[in-house]
Amino acid sequence: MITTTAELLTIGDELLYGQIVDTNAQWMSVALSNAGIKVIRKTTVGDQEEQILIAFAEAESRADIVLVTGGLGPTSDDLTKPCLAKYFGCGLKIHEEALAEVTEFFKSRGRELTDVNRQQAALPECCEKITNKIGTAPGMWFERNGKVFVSMPGVPHEMKLMMTDLIVPRLRQTFKSAIIHHQIVRTIGIGESFLAEKISEWEKSLPPHIKLAYLPGLGEVKLRLTGIGNSLDALKEETKILTRKLTELVGQYIYGYGEEPLEVIVGKLMIEKKITLSIAESCTGGYLSHLITSVPGSSAYFQGSMIPYSYEIKMAQLGVKTETLEKYGAVSEETIREMATLVRGKFNTEIGVATSGIAGPGGATSEKPVGTVWIAYADKNRTVARKLQLSKDRMINIHLASVAVLNLIRLNLLEE
Amino acid sequence: MITTTAELLTIGDELLYGQIVDTNAQWMSVALSNAGIKVIRKTTVGDQEEQILIAFAEAESRADIVLVTGGLGPTSDDLTKPCLAKYFGCGLKIHEEALAEVTEFFKSRGRELTDVNRQQAALPECCEKITNKIGTAPGMWFERNGKVFVSMPGVPHEMKLMMTDLIVPRLRQTFKSAIIHHQIVRTIGIGESFLAEKISEWEKSLPPHIKLAYLPGLGEVKLRLTGIGNSLDALKEETKILTRKLTELVGQYIYGYGEEPLEVIVGKLMIEKKITLSIAESCTGGYLSHLITSVPGSSAYFQGSMIPYSYEIKMAQLGVKTETLEKYGAVSEETIREMATLVRGKFNTEIGVATSGIAGPGGATSEKPVGTVWIAYADKNRTVARKLQLSKDRMINIHLASVAVLNLIRLNLLEE
Repeated sequence: MITTTAELLTIGDELLYGQIVDTNAQWMSVALSNAGIKVIRKTTVGDQEEQILIAFAEAESRADIVLVTGGLGPTSDDLTKPCLAKYFGCGLKIHEEALAEVTEFFKSRGRELTDVNRQQAALPECCEKITNKIGTAPGMWFERNGKVFVSMPGVPHEMKLMMTDLIVPRLRQTFKSAIIHHQIVRTIGIGESFLAEKISEWEKSLPPHIKLAYLPGLGEVKLRLTGIGNSLDALKEETKILTRKLTELVGQYIYGYGEEPLEVIVGKLMIEKKITLSIAESCTGGYLSHLITSVPGSSAYFQGSMIPYSYEIKMAQLGVKTETLEKYGAVSEETIREMATLVRGKFNTEIGVATSGIAGPGGATSEKPVGTVWIAYADKNRTVARKLQLSKDRMINIHLASVAVLNLIRLNLLEE
Repeated sequence: MITTTAELLTIGDELLYGQIVDTNAQWMSVALSNAGIKVIRKTTVGDQEEQILIAFAEAESRADIVLVTGGLGPTSDDLTKPCLAKYFGCGLKIHEEALAEVTEFFKSRGRELTDVNRQQAALPECCEKITNKIGTAPGMWFERNGKVFVSMPGVPHEMKLMMTDLIVPRLRQTFKSAIIHHQIVRTIGIGESFLAEKISEWEKSLPPHIKLAYLPGLGEVKLRLTGIGNSLDALKEETKILTRKLTELVGQYIYGYGEEPLEVIVGKLMIEKKITLSIAESCTGGYLSHLITSVPGSSAYFQGSMIPYSYEIKMAQLGVKTETLEKYGAVSEETIREMATLVRGKFNTEIGVATSGIAGPGGATSEKPVGTVWIAYADKNRTVARKLQLSKDRMINIHLASVAVLNLIRLNLLEE
């Protein structure tokens, strides 16, 4: 099977200086992958003629399709157009239709066409113009020896509209490309290497046209199956069977099979089971509540939280017993159990959860080093507490502890 | 003045498929630029040996420094290490010190070292190991013909720590690069174009070797002066004088002059003035407390928060009057004033602040569209409320409202 390949080339000093993050490349990758075109390289170069011409030649030597963004503005540091003209050996000339479009663009905004803007209608004679419906810089389509070069503006919404409306459909038509299908499996509570061991036999059984990738994140590992073939239905069926086998092996660690993060999955579980939630969070300092409330519609299950950061507030507001705090400390199984059951009672919810720990860098003792965190879950039948030993980094500990609580909620709701 | 150049090479199919956005490259660009090293190209290739080796050779032919991230995991799709060994013509061998470190890493987490993990300590014999203090994959430093290759893990916090602690200082030492000095000025409460108007004369007065950049963020605009020269002292003196003039023009909007974000600046103000803080946050759902508690040592001023997400909790736990909620609604000046004063009283702190609004996408009415947010500040002398009209986006609204409260605290503390 022949795979159609593409390279993405982004032009602009601002990307090399790190002044903006290139989100275009990611969007384009997804759009191309969905169209069965495989992106084999992404390159960013600065606003320098020599570098741009070298990058054109390198990309053309490797890929079937070269998609260029950026460097189409009206100012003198924008070099993409003269470079394309030079590369394809033709002159720049005012394109009458492009001139009419850019004139109309300015007229509709009550502005006059300046000489600088007029130059936006100058295009290499050897290209086909691609209309920019929402901006002033047209796109360009070049073909040579069975390969395609496309140049687009770097402004994200202009690029996206051009890609969706015209470029992707035309690329599909030009290259009868193979179909690529992805299946994501999201796991939590198991490290990458342990997961790899548990599924090594299954991994070895994968057919050559289906590849596995491990995508580790903070506190979770995503697995991605990527199949290449001629039939989307066949690929879907194959990855479905493989995913089912994977679930038999490590199902207890799998929380989802798509784009939804853990807080969304847990939210849906609570809606489904008509559960309400309250939180007493100390070391996570609001982040757990933030994850929960980042989900639109979370008010259907989330009632509220208490963040009892100081000893005084733990006692006076939440009602943790003075003797518990004095005898065991705030970071202890006894305290965390009280916190979860107390907030559940006070806030009158089905579930109460709690966190208390040493996020760091300060606050550690020899028995409780930085990264020691207790979490708890309480419902009407039981209270479950877990001790976590996390990292030395404050923000990582806050994140990992919050994710661990979300997973604790998930596991307990699934058990019911 | 000779410019030292660098290329960034990212390895991983997940970036080509668009499953994650490469934010590492942007962060590295900034770090290198601050060290006087010019990034001339960024390249992303997939997990394929041939492509990786070609990319190594191309990068080495162009730049003084090649920084490689990704592809260092313990699983079979991670190819960076074997490729580096092949490229530099040496074997992979277990590095005893690296093995001791990875063993200790697992031991401290109470986990056993598997065979797969053990392979993380296998390094090309021709490299120097770079210790990964917070992860299991070591970095690698190669030198050949006056050029430097560095390989780092793709996990952002591991890469950043390695770069900051070791790689950037050592690159500075290896390549005596031109001196670049940056001065950041952080503003809040004024839009980019208004700011540009107020400082246009000052901007025109800048000498050619000092450039100004506007770095707009969510709710704030940073200005960055970048001077290039031979003497750090001279550059510092020049930017100091320019910054002083800038402060005369727009001082009321300036909250800081360095890397410290608003929550750190506000935290320092509270420590200096021996102020304690409590928060009642509704629409911000924990994010404001999270910003405050993301600062190490925030327990010196932050006592705790209540997140009364539902009407019931607003009444039963915080004590908002039923008639206030019924008459004016939760998103109103009357309610927000009660919330700030109530939490201040209940939590017994000098300052109480509060948020209540329609974060979206649901919950809007014709009078209170998505983005309507009330915030309030209360101390022993006064209660101040502000209405904000923010965006249609839930996460942006949560962020902007939280930042607005931080600024409200700052302005009120400065007035005293």
